[in-house]
Amino acid sequence: MIKKYVFGNPFPTDAVVLDIDACPESIPFFLHEEINLDLSYLLEKSTCVYGLGESSRGINKRGYLFHSLCSDTPTHTPDLNSMYGAHNFLLINGSDRFGLFIDCSEQVTFDIGYSDYSELRITSKSKDYTIYIILEETLKSIISSFRNLIGESYIPPRWAFGYQQSRWGYKSDSDFYEIVEKHKTLDIPLESIYMDIDYMEDYKDFTIDNSRFPDFGKLVRDLQKDGIKLVPIIDAGVKIEKDYLIYEEGIKNNYFCVDASNSPFVAAVWPGRVHFPDFMNAEVRKWFGEKYRFLTDFGIEGFWNDMNEPAIFYSEEGLKEAFDYLDSIRNSNIGIQETFAMKEAINGIANNPKDYRRFFHHIKGQTVVHEKVHNLYGYMMTRSASEGLKKINPSKRFLLFSRSSYIGMHRYGGIWTGDNSSWWEHLLLNIKMMPSLNMCGFLYCGADLGGFGSNTTYDLMVRWLQFGIFTPLMRNHSALGTRNQELYQFSSSRYFSKLLKFRYQLIPYLYSEYIKAAKLNTLFFSPLSFEYSQDSLAVSIEDQLLVGDSLMIAPLYIQNSSGRYVYLPEQMLMIRFDQQMKKTYEVLSEGHHYLSFSLEEFALFIRPNKLLVLGNTANNTGEMDHTSLELIGFSSNLQPLQSLYYTDDGITTDIDLNTSIQITVVKEEKNWVATSADPNLKFVEITILSSDL
Amino acid sequence: MIKKYVFGNPFPTDAVVLDIDACPESIPFFLHEEINLDLSYLLEKSTCVYGLGESSRGINKRGYLFHSLCSDTPTHTPDLNSMYGAHNFLLINGSDRFGLFIDCSEQVTFDIGYSDYSELRITSKSKDYTIYIILEETLKSIISSFRNLIGESYIPPRWAFGYQQSRWGYKSDSDFYEIVEKHKTLDIPLESIYMDIDYMEDYKDFTIDNSRFPDFGKLVRDLQKDGIKLVPIIDAGVKIEKDYLIYEEGIKNNYFCVDASNSPFVAAVWPGRVHFPDFMNAEVRKWFGEKYRFLTDFGIEGFWNDMNEPAIFYSEEGLKEAFDYLDSIRNSNIGIQETFAMKEAINGIANNPKDYRRFFHHIKGQTVVHEKVHNLYGYMMTRSASEGLKKINPSKRFLLFSRSSYIGMHRYGGIWTGDNSSWWEHLLLNIKMMPSLNMCGFLYCGADLGGFGSNTTYDLMVRWLQFGIFTPLMRNHSALGTRNQELYQFSSSRYFSKLLKFRYQLIPYLYSEYIKAAKLNTLFFSPLSFEYSQDSLAVSIEDQLLVGDSLMIAPLYIQNSSGRYVYLPEQMLMIRFDQQMKKTYEVLSEGHHYLSFSLEEFALFIRPNKLLVLGNTANNTGEMDHTSLELIGFSSNLQPLQSLYYTDDGITTDIDLNTSIQITVVKEEKNWVATSADPNLKFVEITILSSDL
Repeated sequence: MIKKYVFGNPFPTDAVVLDIDACPESIPFFLHEEINLDLSYLLEKSTCVYGLGESSRGINKRGYLFHSLCSDTPTHTPDLNSMYGAHNFLLINGSDRFGLFIDCSEQVTFDIGYSDYSELRITSKSKDYTIYIILEETLKSIISSFRNLIGESYIPPRWAFGYQQSRWGYKSDSDFYEIVEKHKTLDIPLESIYMDIDYMEDYKDFTIDNSRFPDFGKLVRDLQKDGIKLVPIIDAGVKIEKDYLIYEEGIKNNYFCVDASNSPFVAAVWPGRVHFPDFMNAEVRKWFGEKYRFLTDFGIEGFWNDMNEPAIFYSEEGLKEAFDYLDSIRNSNIGIQETFAMKEAINGIANNPKDYRRFFHHIKGQTVVHEKVHNLYGYMMTRSASEGLKKINPSKRFLLFSRSSYIGMHRYGGIWTGDNSSWWEHLLLNIKMMPSLNMCGFLYCGADLGGFGSNTTYDLMVRWLQFGIFTPLMRNHSALGTRNQELYQFSSSRYFSKLLKFRYQLIPYLYSEYIKAAKLNTLFFSPLSFEYSQDSLAVSIEDQLLVGDSLMIAPLYIQNSSGRYVYLPEQMLMIRFDQQMKKTYEVLSEGHHYLSFSLEEFALFIRPNKLLVLGNTANNTGEMDHTSLELIGFSSNLQPLQSLYYTDDGITTDIDLNTSIQITVVKEEKNWVATSADPNLKFVEITILSSDL
Repeated sequence: MIKKYVFGNPFPTDAVVLDIDACPESIPFFLHEEINLDLSYLLEKSTCVYGLGESSRGINKRGYLFHSLCSDTPTHTPDLNSMYGAHNFLLINGSDRFGLFIDCSEQVTFDIGYSDYSELRITSKSKDYTIYIILEETLKSIISSFRNLIGESYIPPRWAFGYQQSRWGYKSDSDFYEIVEKHKTLDIPLESIYMDIDYMEDYKDFTIDNSRFPDFGKLVRDLQKDGIKLVPIIDAGVKIEKDYLIYEEGIKNNYFCVDASNSPFVAAVWPGRVHFPDFMNAEVRKWFGEKYRFLTDFGIEGFWNDMNEPAIFYSEEGLKEAFDYLDSIRNSNIGIQETFAMKEAINGIANNPKDYRRFFHHIKGQTVVHEKVHNLYGYMMTRSASEGLKKINPSKRFLLFSRSSYIGMHRYGGIWTGDNSSWWEHLLLNIKMMPSLNMCGFLYCGADLGGFGSNTTYDLMVRWLQFGIFTPLMRNHSALGTRNQELYQFSSSRYFSKLLKFRYQLIPYLYSEYIKAAKLNTLFFSPLSFEYSQDSLAVSIEDQLLVGDSLMIAPLYIQNSSGRYVYLPEQMLMIRFDQQMKKTYEVLSEGHHYLSFSLEEFALFIRPNKLLVLGNTANNTGEMDHTSLELIGFSSNLQPLQSLYYTDDGITTDIDLNTSIQITVVKEEKNWVATSADPNLKFVEITILSSDL
């Protein structure tokens, strides 16, 4: 049951897709001050609070303070209060159990036992917001009810599950040819290469620098021959440059955000001074979305939208203020106060919330200050792209994801978790963030594997990829100036080759489970506590996840560890992978286990009476043979094992779960025999272990 | 056996105290390029590398790159390559097992399998260095041989083991009275309060701001009545101010470091422009060290030396360069390049290694560029203080510790681990760093409990103090502008009161074990792998430590965890503490355990046939009753338990381990009965559990 409460005159966010009548009575559970948004709830000692999608810290958010304020945060230290997305969904699990969605386009603060360990306090200056309370029996049913409220998650093409390579700094077509060549030479799978900001002419959207890409069409086609896609970046800011088409059209049609004097607002990003398209305006969304055609006409099939919080290096006013301050102190004895103030002046010009009050949107005849709708900007940019691409080819799935987001955007694209660092702690953060994102509808997600900022190490890359092979978006991305981290850069690249080939074997399972999660409003990555809700130990295990219906993973995320503890809420089949990715099987009992793993070893775990389907190895989804599967499972009682397996052509928008194939494995005399309704599907290897009953 | 190899003309560091002849043959184990320091060693897959004292990451340093370059690092992210100290000691544990000390006053780089996972490479531009190779059978014997080489560690007074309160921002005497009062009111133990930079007049060393401290002597005496000490900070930089005594004396006697034109070098720190005393010069050390008398004359008994890397906010040249750059771009379209460069220009002026080439020392008639001796500066400042205090009162132990250090300084004072943050990750870093510091001789150590930078939380403070009660330096310290974190600031301060009272009960044990570690060159905090060297699991357990001879601890360091795994290399007695600090006992078997702990619960573990001595509870060491002890132990075979217990008056320098008291507990019929050679020592409670044999 979902209850809706409306206050003031909320700005329409299109976050929800169900039409629900507002309740007249007061909000349950909370003390509520209606002057602004101000909700207070008493936290019992053992109450867990889940949700908040893209945010720092653990799966259980208890004990810290979070602001939903889409922010270009360059360094993800553990004290971070905001990241790129605003995902105002909480799930309270104590004596009370309910979901809570604050649909509000402005900043909202979630004090989850930070100021007072026993109080949850949700506040905002906003007087305009809608609150949804989701009441269901279990954590899983609350999630599915909430996800039903906000609508079906974005489904990418199957190739988006391939291994993707990115780095800020690829500058010319020869870089891309070289990357393909090096992967080929070392037999490392490769699905796509990302084009970061340097492919553009002076960082102008929908341009290609001809001097560095003299025949872009040929590059696209040459890579297509190897099954490899190029995925260009699109930034929110449009360069101010006479005769640049996008700029000129935007100016002519008043498509840009304006300043207080109704002139196009000037901010600075990569190209220096830019204007921001007014994505809050439906006409602007339509205009900008269709510009993607410039690239799809070359054969491009995927995009990532960036800098759409929007990131601001500086505004004209902000820059002037900083220089004025520096001028005021430059001839004094610069001591403690001035030193800190000088740094703050320069560092504070970027992404300064003051600037959000300096520009405005035109929405249905009204002028709305940016601050009021800040959290929707990236969402609306990606909606613009999605709707544009739909027009360009209505029957085709494009890869599309964004840095900034708000709940609702999950219907239009995925997200990556932004500028993390090559820190072991960020591998763990990646693990913990995935289920929280799933709760908020974001299924196509991943972190920059190996870490974006700072220098990665071989061992970190190994451990991160051992987890990354399970994330729908599996992309290696790194920042300009950091150590090169394409997999061929490491002397032991052979291990990566084997590991990625296994990723391709996993794709049939991952893809099938992804589509089910999207269509059935379930979690692709689930915390143990959501599945094993009666297990009091499961609740504190945040470093193991369920992946789809059959798998549990327990990633290794500590440098120089030679093993880890794994908790099994029930008996499971462990598949252990050695350095050669050779599998060995062992049924492990319910309970605690310490498992030793050297650096190039890891394991996964299959739940009882579930099936893991593995496809055929490939270096690219285009090469994949979908006619046969390997089946692995663990029967706790010699009963048949079943799995609903979904597959399709991987690219058209026509997705029907009813076409799923029921796979059944039964014990016949000494052997386990698999059958399915699809006569074309062969089962080449069936490994079913059973416990000693 | 220690082998010494000398190259070039090493600058004398006084790090070692033994006079050893240099070996003529070449260095064992390593490939050695003698153009500069350049050592290469092949790392096997399972080789562990320990050491490096104050540095980021784990106890095993394998896989990362470290520079020994004393640095004022404001944010301890996991990619940090340098911290405040230069501790060039490594311990290699593989097929080869040996210790390695690079005695070199210049920057040294330790690439421990970072560039190539299978190579240890130690490099420096220096041509002048001494290498010591320590060859012994075990990790423990290598440590003790190395510590014998570098001389006995600093021993603080006993009161330095009390609970200490600090914060940057205490400004006047009323702040200090208030802190005392609030601890008293809530019955929270308190031993000392730190005076951070604001007690001084304009941040001038050896001054007190009379307007905010109108009668400093009275403040000291008033606090002394409650047994509470004041511990002022002393900074390295001396303010340039006419008629300020220290400045005038320094100028008159040419006691300051000079620039290329032989004028006193100008850098800026808290007071703005300062000169740096030339601590490399023995005469300057003598002069500065005796200045501490200004404060000891008021009754001050402890000091912390800060900013002695030396920290530099900016140099005149650096500031000019930054402003020149800003002037060059201010009227252009500031794009990607300029934005980053602008930030770098301002942020890079602080602690810029370029400045280390801009000033010089006068050492025995020679002019030496600072870069050459950079890593010794903080060491020599603290040596200056120690030698000065010895002159002021030769028979008294003063509390003294430093931010910057080099091996050798461990004889003169302790260190705190600098400006950490209120991150759970920094609690874990604190745990892992302690044994590494001990290896390098630094025994009196601790981190800023609760975290210095960023805002702490109640749960973090609880968990951090549950570990902090075991660190010799137990200080709560935080930065200006962060959330107040004195223990009385939290609504649940009652728990802290109980926890700290237990710290005071631990002091007899901690003090006794500390003195033994200092006198016998052993580890106060030991990794499990050093004690249980045959246990292949112990090597990968970095989140449990041995504390002294009898205890093992397994701190909780994850937010919202409700328990943790603990590995017992042998059967042990667990003492579990509940919210009320009530103890329950349980003998746990060797092996893996999952133990549940709610937030205000934790445990410690006693090794078989060892004794934990607990003293009487107190709110201050001055109140402690040393006439009786409680004994807790676990007898694995009903044999007597023994412990060598050291105690003394806690303040005079006269320390003789031979006065230790042998305590023996034997089973007599049904009871365990304790005896000791000291008739004045009573045993009020004896709890000995034994396993079922």
